[in-house]
Formats: sequence, structure tokens, C-alpha cells
Amino acid sequence: MVSTQLDEIKVLVERVEKLIELDASVELRELINDLNISDVAELIYEMPEHTLPFFQQLDFQRALAVFRILDVSIQEELLKSLPPYQLVQILNDLPPDDRTSLLSELPSSTVKEIIKHLNPEERKVTLSLLGYPEESVGRLMTPDYIDVELDWTVEQVLTYIRDYGKSSETIDVIYVTDANGTLIDDVRIRDFLLVDPKTTHVSDLIDGRYISLHVNDDQKEVANVFQMNNRVALPVVDDRNVLLGIVTIDDVLWVVEEEYTEDIQRIGGTEALDDPYLDVSLFQLYKKRIVWLIVLFFGELLTITAMSNFEGQIAKVVMLATFIPLIISSGGNSGSQAATLIIQAMALGEVTIKDWWTVMRREIFSGLFLGLTLCVFSFSVISLWHLFSPTFGEHYFRIALVVGTSLIGVVMWGSLMGSMLPLLLKRLGADPAASSTPFVATLVDVTGLLIYFSVAMLYLKGILL
Amino acid sequence: MVSTQLDEIKVLVERVEKLIELDASVELRELINDLNISDVAELIYEMPEHTLPFFQQLDFQRALAVFRILDVSIQEELLKSLPPYQLVQILNDLPPDDRTSLLSELPSSTVKEIIKHLNPEERKVTLSLLGYPEESVGRLMTPDYIDVELDWTVEQVLTYIRDYGKSSETIDVIYVTDANGTLIDDVRIRDFLLVDPKTTHVSDLIDGRYISLHVNDDQKEVANVFQMNNRVALPVVDDRNVLLGIVTIDDVLWVVEEEYTEDIQRIGGTEALDDPYLDVSLFQLYKKRIVWLIVLFFGELLTITAMSNFEGQIAKVVMLATFIPLIISSGGNSGSQAATLIIQAMALGEVTIKDWWTVMRREIFSGLFLGLTLCVFSFSVISLWHLFSPTFGEHYFRIALVVGTSLIGVVMWGSLMGSMLPLLLKRLGADPAASSTPFVATLVDVTGLLIYFSVAMLYLKGILL
Repeated sequence: MVSTQLDEIKVLVERVEKLIELDASVELRELINDLNISDVAELIYEMPEHTLPFFQQLDFQRALAVFRILDVSIQEELLKSLPPYQLVQILNDLPPDDRTSLLSELPSSTVKEIIKHLNPEERKVTLSLLGYPEESVGRLMTPDYIDVELDWTVEQVLTYIRDYGKSSETIDVIYVTDANGTLIDDVRIRDFLLVDPKTTHVSDLIDGRYISLHVNDDQKEVANVFQMNNRVALPVVDDRNVLLGIVTIDDVLWVVEEEYTEDIQRIGGTEALDDPYLDVSLFQLYKKRIVWLIVLFFGELLTITAMSNFEGQIAKVVMLATFIPLIISSGGNSGSQAATLIIQAMALGEVTIKDWWTVMRREIFSGLFLGLTLCVFSFSVISLWHLFSPTFGEHYFRIALVVGTSLIGVVMWGSLMGSMLPLLLKRLGADPAASSTPFVATLVDVTGLLIYFSVAMLYLKGILL
Repeated sequence: MVSTQLDEIKVLVERVEKLIELDASVELRELINDLNISDVAELIYEMPEHTLPFFQQLDFQRALAVFRILDVSIQEELLKSLPPYQLVQILNDLPPDDRTSLLSELPSSTVKEIIKHLNPEERKVTLSLLGYPEESVGRLMTPDYIDVELDWTVEQVLTYIRDYGKSSETIDVIYVTDANGTLIDDVRIRDFLLVDPKTTHVSDLIDGRYISLHVNDDQKEVANVFQMNNRVALPVVDDRNVLLGIVTIDDVLWVVEEEYTEDIQRIGGTEALDDPYLDVSLFQLYKKRIVWLIVLFFGELLTITAMSNFEGQIAKVVMLATFIPLIISSGGNSGSQAATLIIQAMALGEVTIKDWWTVMRREIFSGLFLGLTLCVFSFSVISLWHLFSPTFGEHYFRIALVVGTSLIGVVMWGSLMGSMLPLLLKRLGADPAASSTPFVATLVDVTGLLIYFSVAMLYLKGILL
């Protein structure tokens, strides 16, 4: 049960430690083989120094199941430390889609080494799956499915499943193909079970309303197709509609999580990490962040140019400097809001490039109202402040006017930039999530200063400036 | 196929428009009943004015399937416009989990109205599902599953499925319970199909290694359990291990997407939107954003207090103001990076509160190296700049020293704040994603100014200040 999982693992670790201490290898073996595979994985994460011995205690099918859910870094570790005969066994028995995704994450020298160990047939399947572009549906699919023909009876189908179902990744959906391998339909296993097996033919069960993925489709869009169609597996075809493999929904859950993690990291202004945060080396962590920090640093250099043009004004009215952080971060904040809303709406397919005009209109109005609200607040705050402290001097009302008006302009501008930038990036073929909140904030900083000092000139010229 | 979906929909809309124009209702009915349900949904989104007529053209089972995947706002629209007899039919036939999630999104007055239309049995199920806390597994589950007993033969099981399987949400997994309804194990349908049905008993197929969810578990954690255990459905039990229902993986995909959308919106500094971006009213859009903007505005007021303490220094060395945007946004940027990395690592369970010391150590060092790099860049830029323009005057080297040292301090501080804040929020029982990038940036702004002006005093006292 989820709620008590943490405590259970702690108890488990203590039990295992005691068994190791007592050198009770038989009991240990029994215990490990009796656990859920997710608990074995947890155990390996908690006691990494025992990874290999734990793993070798497991019955082969269970070892395989555990291996499939381990982090890539630990999988690689294990592959390196396993004796060759076990390595070969594991690799040959992994479902092709899992093997492919494992291989695509390992360094190419390790991959070469590993592919050598595969038997000729498995090697062929793996190399063909590796031939599809990364992030494509081809890399997700498994060729282990069951396909039947139109003129079979349901009884024939059930016998066939009994004979050949063991090696297939899922038998929840059965595929109907013709002699050329062209996909005709998919039928859920339940439909076979709910009819009389002797008198019903496959052709009675098809409705021709299947949904298929193309082998070159982007993995990102697959989740959406699964959601909209209530399926546990989808067939993958090529240009001639020949069935090449299937994608199962459990693999899609991983894809969705990975995509979102990348998006969130990009939105926060770093490159996507390849591994869990705590597994990434300090140097990697530095590398993934420094590029954007430098880019943003150079962006901010523009603020220096802008500011140095206004030094004369600051020298005359030092107080103008006081409001700079407030003004530019209000712009940055509204920009961050707009950018994340639009990035996420685009990721969900709720907003597309062709909606740009609707989005722009909505953001101009939202920005206007948001800015007006902050304007009112700044007026109130500066007036109240003036009652208790002379910080803003006799011209406090004019200062409030400058700050308030600038806030309207900066917040509107921030909302507009934040919302249009992801659309623009998409239009240019880039990832909308690259318009990170720091990036938007930096862009708005420079323009925010220009707005602020222009407004100041407008209201204060001849009076203070 | 995904890649051509957009074009296909366009062609489809044109075809439908023509049929409507020609008043060819028979052809229209045929066409609509021949489409995939996801295409019907698309059609409804493209031509919202025809929602009701399209819907009424559909055969009942298909109408139900389409209804399940529509956005809540359109579902509500439809429920209101459908004639009562159709409303009753739809509601009674929706799977209980879908009905519950629909009802929990509608205003309570509408819910009351709707529950009146349910038949007594369905009403009981719905009300009991509504009794579980929102965001709990109880709200996700469906009571439509198949459970069998230990002493049945596989043949009995298959016959039972044939008789009662139609109303169950999934028959991919069958549950084994005792006379009290206590869960004993779950068995995949494939295991029944791969053995001889006459001689094998249910008791031969169980291995006692089932994973169950507790009815009060948080929905957020369910995705993780599915991923780690390769299941398409999981049983839900109460404290006494009595089977109450099941959760299917396709519902989990929606939960995952919703959770991530909320997280991304929070990270960007808005409250989570309840509906798709384009469906939210301007007022809602304003409301969801203004709260945080005002909070951040008041946070930024602290910068005014800070700045007004340094007015004397700015008056003496106006140039100090020039670097304010650069300094504070570098801190904000590194803070945003750290915050999003940690928020996401926590969401994936890669980092927990007990890792705080490891995280802190990593972030201090990352921040140090990131800051050092920006320090080197700022030195180079200011020196080069000095070669071509006298902006920074004769003390340019000291200015560079101030800016460079401040950057190290501010970036380290930003990384530290950004990484510790999500952990602190979690510790306090709040959502880590509430430590939005704007929030972190604002916090770092205030402290960044203090660091900057303190460093300036240190290096410039007696020389320029």
C-alpha cells in the first residue's frame, strides 16, 4: 500500500541487513524472491553496494522484471558487473522495446559491446528498432504481439494464444492482419471471451474502427491518442499500413513523465538533466545550468547599456533607482505567468499557433487589468508610506504616477512577451518550453527599464528632471 | 494517424459542413457513426454550435464513449441541453469513476439536479464514490470488476466472464477474493488463457504477490505504482483489505497530465487553471494570476526599503545603480533553476526531505562554480568595455571587483534559496511547486541587493563611497 511504503522499506532493509549479517543466504534468497519487484528495486536503491548479489539471488524471470524497472545508471552498472553468460541471458530476454530504450541511453561504446552478446535474431530486431529516430514511436514499439486472420474462429484464436501468447508483451489486444501483414483491425481480448468460441469468426468481431500510430510519429503525441481512445495498446504501421509492432500504455506513462520533466526543467531555465537529480555529477549539474546563465547574463548586459543612458536622470532623482527592482520584477513575474500558461496549453494541444491572435487579445486585456490592479496598489502604498515617512519627498504624488503608469505598461508588455514567445519559438520550429521563465524575465527587464524611464521623463521633465 | 490528424479534421469539417448545407441527415448520421470517437470529439470542438445535434446522431454506446472524453465544460453544456430521458440514460450508463469525476467538477447545484436523475442503485454507487476525499484513489476507482473464488476452475471463470464481463470496466485483470470480499490475489486474463481450462483451478494460478492501493491514498502516487509494477489495473482496498474497486491505467494517464499541468502553472507563479486556457474566462484568468502578482508586489516592496537605505551610496556613485538589474536577475535566474530542478525531482520521488543536506551541499558547490563563471565573465566584459568606452571611469577595476564578487554571492545564495524552499514547503505540509520561479526570484531580489551594496561598501569605502 502506497501510504505505508516508506516505513515498509525501512523495516525490509533492516531485515535484509540482519540476514546478511547472519550470513543466512537461504533465507535471504527466499525473502528476495517473495517480494514485489518494486520492493526489490527499492532495496537495490537503498543498499546499492549489494546490487549484484541481490540480483543474482533472483529467479531468472523475476530478475528480468526487476531489471526492467531499475534506473538506467544502475542497469548500466549491472550490465558491466554481470558475468557474460548472465548478461547474454538478460539481454536476449528483455522485450525489444525495453532493450532499445536501454541501448539508446548508454554510451555507444557500451552499446557495441552489448550488441555483440545478442543472438543473431535478437540482434536483428534490436538494430532495426534502433534505426528509427530517437523520440519516434518506432523506438517505443515491441514486435511481440499476436496477430490473427479474418477467417479464423474464436476457438482457433484462443488456441493460438495459448500456444504463442507467452512471448507476447500483451494479449489484451489482438491484431487482425491479411496475408501481406496489412493491418485490418484490432480486437480487445474481452470481445473474444464474451462470444461463443465455436460459431464466431474473427470477421464477426471487427468493426474497422482501429486507431494506428505511424512508426515515425513523435512519442509526445502518443499519450494524447491513448487518452482520447481508451486503449491499453496501439498498433504501429508504416506508410503502406503494414503492422510493424505495438505500443503499450505502460510505456507511454514513462514517456509522459519524461516529457514533462524535460519541459519543467526547460521552463525553469536549465537544459534537461539526463538522470535523476541526485545521480547527476556536480559537473553535469553545472554544465546543464551554466549555458543558460551565461546567455541570460549577456541578455542582462543590455540593461547596463540601458541604465547607463539614464545615469543623468538617476543622478538628478536618485529615488528613481529605488523602484527599479519593483518595476522590472513585476514585468518579469507577469511574463513568467503568461509563458508557463501558454507553454502548458500548447503541450496539451489546447493552444496552437493559429490561435495566436486570440491569445494576444486575451493577454493584452489580462495584462491591462493585472497592471491596473498593481497600479492602484502602488498608488495606495506610496501615499500611505508618505504619511509615515518622508522618503518620497514632496513630489510623492508624481513619483506614484510614474511608478503606477510604468507598472501598467510593464505588466502588459510582460504578459504579451511571455505569451507570444512560446508561439514564436514553435513557429520557428523550436521547443516552446525553451522560452523559460528566466528568459522571459530577462527580455522584459530591458524593455521594462525603457518603459520606466520614458514614463519618468514624461511626468518629471521640467519638475525634477 | 497522428501526423496527419490536423489535415484530416479540416477535410472532415468541410465534409460535414457540406452535408449540413445539403440537409443530408442520413449521410451525416452514417458518417458520424463511422468515425473514431476521438474524431467525433474533434468535430464537436471545431463546430461547437452543432454539439447537441451531432451527439443525438450517435448510437447510444458511441455517444457514451464520446461523452467520456469531452472536456468538462462541454459535458456540462450537453447535460443541460439534453432532453431528460437521454440525460438519465447517459448518466446511468457512465462508468462510476467517470461519473464521479464529472460530478466533482460541476457546481454543486448542477450535481444535485443530476443525482436526482440516477436510478437508485447507480445513485448509491455514485454517492459512495463522492464520499472519498478529492484527490484520493477512492474517487478514481470503479466498482465494475470481475472477482472469482479460489476453488473455481478456469473453465468456470471463463464462463463467468462471458456472462458478467460486459458491465465490467476491464477484464484484463481478474481478482480473487474470499467469501468476505477480502482480496487474495489478482491474476491477469492471459494467465487464464495460457492454461488448460478444465484441469486448472484459480488456486493454481495465484502467487500472492499482488499490489493494492488504499482507498485514501493520494492519486499523485498512483502513477508511480503503475510504472514500477507493469500493471494495467490495480485493486483498491480498505483498512481490512476488503476489495472496494479497481483503478485502470488509462485513468491514471489523465491524473498524471492534470498533476503536471498544475505543477507547471504553479511553478510559473499562477494558481492552477480549472479548464483549458482558451476556455477560461478573462476574469478567471485575471483571478488566477493577480493573487500571486500582488503577493510578489508586496515582496518587492522590501526592495524599496532596501534601496532607500542605499540612496546615499547611489547618490555618490550613480554607476552602482547601473548594475542592479544584472545582479538581481542573475540571482533570480540561478534560483529559478535550482527550484525547478528540486521541485521536479521531488515530484518524481528522486529527492525527499531527508536528502536536504545532500541537496544543500550540491547546491552550494554548484552555486559557487556558477557564480565564479559569471564573475569571470563580468570581469572580462567590464575590462573590455573600459577599453572602448569610459562608462565605468578610472575605477573600473574596483567596479568589476564589486560586481564579480556580488555575482558569486548572489548566485550561490539564489541556488541555495531555490533548492531549500521547495523542501521547506514540503516540510511545512505545503505543495513544493508553490515555490514558483517568480517567488524565488523575488526573495533573491531583496537579499541580492543587500549582498551587492555590502560588497560595494567593502571595496569602495574611502575610495568612492
